[in-house]
Amino acid sequence: VSEFDDQVRVTATGEGTFAAELPAGWVVGGGVNGGFQLSVVASALRETFPTKPHALTMSAVYQTAGTPGPATVTVDVAREGGSTATASASLVQDGQTRISVLATCASLDAFAEKYAARGGPSYRFTDEPELAPLEECLSSLDAPAELKSFIPMLDRFELRLDPRHVTWQSETPSMGGEIVGWFRFADGRDPDPLALLTACDVLPPVTFDLGMFGWAPTLELSVHLRGVPAPGWLKIRHRTRLVEGGLFDEECEIWDSTGALVAQSRQLALVPRS
Amino acid sequence: VSEFDDQVRVTATGEGTFAAELPAGWVVGGGVNGGFQLSVVASALRETFPTKPHALTMSAVYQTAGTPGPATVTVDVAREGGSTATASASLVQDGQTRISVLATCASLDAFAEKYAARGGPSYRFTDEPELAPLEECLSSLDAPAELKSFIPMLDRFELRLDPRHVTWQSETPSMGGEIVGWFRFADGRDPDPLALLTACDVLPPVTFDLGMFGWAPTLELSVHLRGVPAPGWLKIRHRTRLVEGGLFDEECEIWDSTGALVAQSRQLALVPRS
Repeated sequence: VSEFDDQVRVTATGEGTFAAELPAGWVVGGGVNGGFQLSVVASALRETFPTKPHALTMSAVYQTAGTPGPATVTVDVAREGGSTATASASLVQDGQTRISVLATCASLDAFAEKYAARGGPSYRFTDEPELAPLEECLSSLDAPAELKSFIPMLDRFELRLDPRHVTWQSETPSMGGEIVGWFRFADGRDPDPLALLTACDVLPPVTFDLGMFGWAPTLELSVHLRGVPAPGWLKIRHRTRLVEGGLFDEECEIWDSTGALVAQSRQLALVPRS
Repeated sequence: VSEFDDQVRVTATGEGTFAAELPAGWVVGGGVNGGFQLSVVASALRETFPTKPHALTMSAVYQTAGTPGPATVTVDVAREGGSTATASASLVQDGQTRISVLATCASLDAFAEKYAARGGPSYRFTDEPELAPLEECLSSLDAPAELKSFIPMLDRFELRLDPRHVTWQSETPSMGGEIVGWFRFADGRDPDPLALLTACDVLPPVTFDLGMFGWAPTLELSVHLRGVPAPGWLKIRHRTRLVEGGLFDEECEIWDSTGALVAQSRQLALVPRS
């Protein structure tokens, strides 16, 4: 069993309640990574809807910072029927809600099969990120020790950032409001829909590429799952459109090794102080 | 009082419960417009958090189609403190949840003042839509009668669609996955944050511009409010990035008459049958 599968596992403890454990290894600055918390909640959703194993949409409001240790995930089913199911969920620690979630679950495979059967067309209006080759990108394994001590999650995966934008070792941002990188788990576990929820939140905040290197607390994050990723490295692109009035949006696209767009997310976050 | 203000008004009926009325005039095909329902919920949030009158983020899962008639909005406050408040909310009719919502409320003005005081920078990486002049765009007032009978909400506002993309009168889509138009309320009421929630859902589905003219049920819609709009016409742009496997994303940007990006939204929806 891979490290990630072990870490996101939940255990049913009652009707719609699950026990989880947030690992110290996923801490980033002030708390446990928000994307990882989404994966834990999605893990409970998968237990709840075994025939609808994919969280097509997850919207999360971040209430308080998650801390390493036990957590309870509650799932409140709103509607199940036909090809989708919807639920509210939350991740709670010590009586405090960390994240509140709204989710739509389904089987991506069942959707794709039905759509193919009716001959539905496909269109794509966004381009796969152009990334420098793996060997020219800067690896999170080589991030400065002081950064790693502040961001233990950097040991969970290998992130290779394209040197055209801000990286671990460069404080010269491109000022283009974009960060792109390659991602895979440290132990080589291949990506799956559960992992994409984490992957959409592992790059540095896009504000780093605008010279603001502080922590950027997320207010809201919505993820749309668009495909089951093929094995291999993922390409991740963060972009912002508007930094204004103390708030910025950060969109994320995740592309798999076959060039398929497999996830899209957007968050609204607070502009860092520095 | 404008028609819209009258229609979105809610009346407190208890701790966290509000009475509302969904007007027949906002019906679009199978139900009451989803964006309008968001405005009604935001109206209840504004009553709940008078010093945090703006829903900075609203994420909604569409459970069942809203119908004209009485509705109850429930607001469950999750956290209030500092500059933001968060809540879960739902709009219910006849015991059936129409939409479930997660929201973050704040004062955009307070955010902007604080950010200006610390000299925070602004950046924008998206362009105001290039729209044909108002007089060259095709007005919803001139939409075919059979369309108007199916979409009564077309009488609530004036929407002028740029003829470069699909319009009311043309069945020749640009196949670019984009629709842009001008928007204002029929009675000339100026836009405000509450109205933007409706405005992000009034254009035809972006799939119209790909030759698919059917109804496109929304699974999830998230809106980020980015500014208080200036008086005057709004510019609205819908774009999709990926139509695949029976699902498509539709993003919306709303720009005010001064050229400010005032709202961003993205939804995941089902590809129409036709």
